[in-house]
Amino acid sequence: MSGRDTGGFPPGDDLTLARLISLVEKDSAQVPEIMESLSAQPGKAYRIGITGPPGAGKSTLVNGLTTLLRERGSSVAVLAVDPTSPFKGGALLGDRVRMQKHYTDEGVFIRSLATRGVKGGLTGTIGEIIDLVDASGKDYILLETVGVGQGELDIAGHVDTVVVVLVPGSGDSIQFMKAGIMEIADIFVVNKSDLAGADELVNNLSVTIDLAKKGEPWQIPVLKCRADVNEGTKELLDQTLLHRRMLESSGLLEKRRGRQRLQQFQVLLEQRILEDIRAKILAEDEVKKIGGKIEKGEISPYAALSRIIETVLPSLFGKETRNSSEKRSKK
Amino acid sequence: MSGRDTGGFPPGDDLTLARLISLVEKDSAQVPEIMESLSAQPGKAYRIGITGPPGAGKSTLVNGLTTLLRERGSSVAVLAVDPTSPFKGGALLGDRVRMQKHYTDEGVFIRSLATRGVKGGLTGTIGEIIDLVDASGKDYILLETVGVGQGELDIAGHVDTVVVVLVPGSGDSIQFMKAGIMEIADIFVVNKSDLAGADELVNNLSVTIDLAKKGEPWQIPVLKCRADVNEGTKELLDQTLLHRRMLESSGLLEKRRGRQRLQQFQVLLEQRILEDIRAKILAEDEVKKIGGKIEKGEISPYAALSRIIETVLPSLFGKETRNSSEKRSKK
Repeated sequence: MSGRDTGGFPPGDDLTLARLISLVEKDSAQVPEIMESLSAQPGKAYRIGITGPPGAGKSTLVNGLTTLLRERGSSVAVLAVDPTSPFKGGALLGDRVRMQKHYTDEGVFIRSLATRGVKGGLTGTIGEIIDLVDASGKDYILLETVGVGQGELDIAGHVDTVVVVLVPGSGDSIQFMKAGIMEIADIFVVNKSDLAGADELVNNLSVTIDLAKKGEPWQIPVLKCRADVNEGTKELLDQTLLHRRMLESSGLLEKRRGRQRLQQFQVLLEQRILEDIRAKILAEDEVKKIGGKIEKGEISPYAALSRIIETVLPSLFGKETRNSSEKRSKK
Repeated sequence: MSGRDTGGFPPGDDLTLARLISLVEKDSAQVPEIMESLSAQPGKAYRIGITGPPGAGKSTLVNGLTTLLRERGSSVAVLAVDPTSPFKGGALLGDRVRMQKHYTDEGVFIRSLATRGVKGGLTGTIGEIIDLVDASGKDYILLETVGVGQGELDIAGHVDTVVVVLVPGSGDSIQFMKAGIMEIADIFVVNKSDLAGADELVNNLSVTIDLAKKGEPWQIPVLKCRADVNEGTKELLDQTLLHRRMLESSGLLEKRRGRQRLQQFQVLLEQRILEDIRAKILAEDEVKKIGGKIEKGEISPYAALSRIIETVLPSLFGKETRNSSEKRSKK
């Protein structure tokens, strides 16, 4: 409600932050420099991921959490990686009205992110964007992703607490649970809990959790929620903060972030190498020539691949195609 | 309907096909050999992609199309890349019952595909899987993908006709149209056309098409459909076959597939190179050492990346990091 409380974050910085995020999204040549200069600052933002199937009410929950965090004087950044999210600007009027007060609140930074990135996945740029937001001094980062497709499960690689939102009576939710979501959830929310089947879904989740996570330091809670009328949102925040305290006091937060940083490094390194090599390879005469033959149907992509790997790559890189030669000679 | 008409495709082959697809999904070392051996056979399967937001009724449409194609004696393969699809086996009872007759029909091959693949995208393995299905002698391949996230837009790179399914009165559909779908659609279906807003959606689509695609050889049709009661499914098949005839007679089919094969080659080449290099790089002492420092927070992933690119990569590959050095020296 504190519409003008900037939570220690001067409004001017949000413009810079938005500009820097755009540079990262565009994969600008300045990105490495920017990231290197920022990273000296230790991050203080706590990162909460909210994921679930389309229509589960994730945005409404994010809106409710934002309100609660603002009431406590914390600054909040909302990052939405969801083509169906109202934060993208085009969606249902109700959602936009709900979120409207946050758009004019200088303590709230809202940004929708393209899912296009490198290879369409979340992995590459999202880590950089979160680090940028973190460096800008936000207290909380709420990362909303739609939980369809494996790429989006990467959310666990970028946040401290993963909140999985499901709704009763939906085949989607069942599918969703099967798709590996059990392994990444720290908190389950059964939203729209006035719908039929809510208790059944809560029970199913509780049983599955009991079977899967025996004896871990964190008991995954299953919360009932009606985000549209703000029921259960406070309990969700309480549980999130409880999870935070557990991670901090046990040293798990540090370990988790260490692993995330290492993963981020490996992804960036791969992307960088691939980028360098891609242009070089595709410009090779031999590769261009075989490309023409593939287009005309004179050689299959698979036969061409094998030929390029056996002839062109060794002359370009020498030893590092050893792996492939070994593989290929096994036949 | 023709439960035992195998459409010229001996049932035994479907087992082999299923096994080969599994090998591709597991990224088995045998894959290159398998693909090379198959690719001598020219494909005859016509490839239809059906995409749209979750809940648009894609699977019901696919089911209807399958029935119609079987009635004409054609063999059909259904490939579903959709974590919320009933073809995945876990979904709504009604859908399973509807599809059931096809499960026992030897002229229909049904396979749900993991979205996990390389980097979570559709691109890598789907091309190989389609080529396998094609080589097995199917007349039609129906590829169903959920249209959330950019990765799934890759469907246009793998099929001959792209059918985009939308439903009225849904924010999803509007978002979906914005997300670049206009460029890949060959046919639009407004499904659940008994819902309010159907005519409006049809009109909006028609106007947008007129503005965007003036003077092209193919006028993108916008079809109203109620897949659940089988209304409009025949019109969809008719339009699809019309599109096919246009592509074939104009020579566009050949060009389109040529481009797709070239793209498939480039993706495979990148993956192969990355795979070879990844293991090599991550095994380097210097990279392992810096990885430890990243985990402990002694160096940021970004600073580490820059150091590795400047020191380790040149000694491994020599000249091909020239690009990066040039970029970096621009500061």
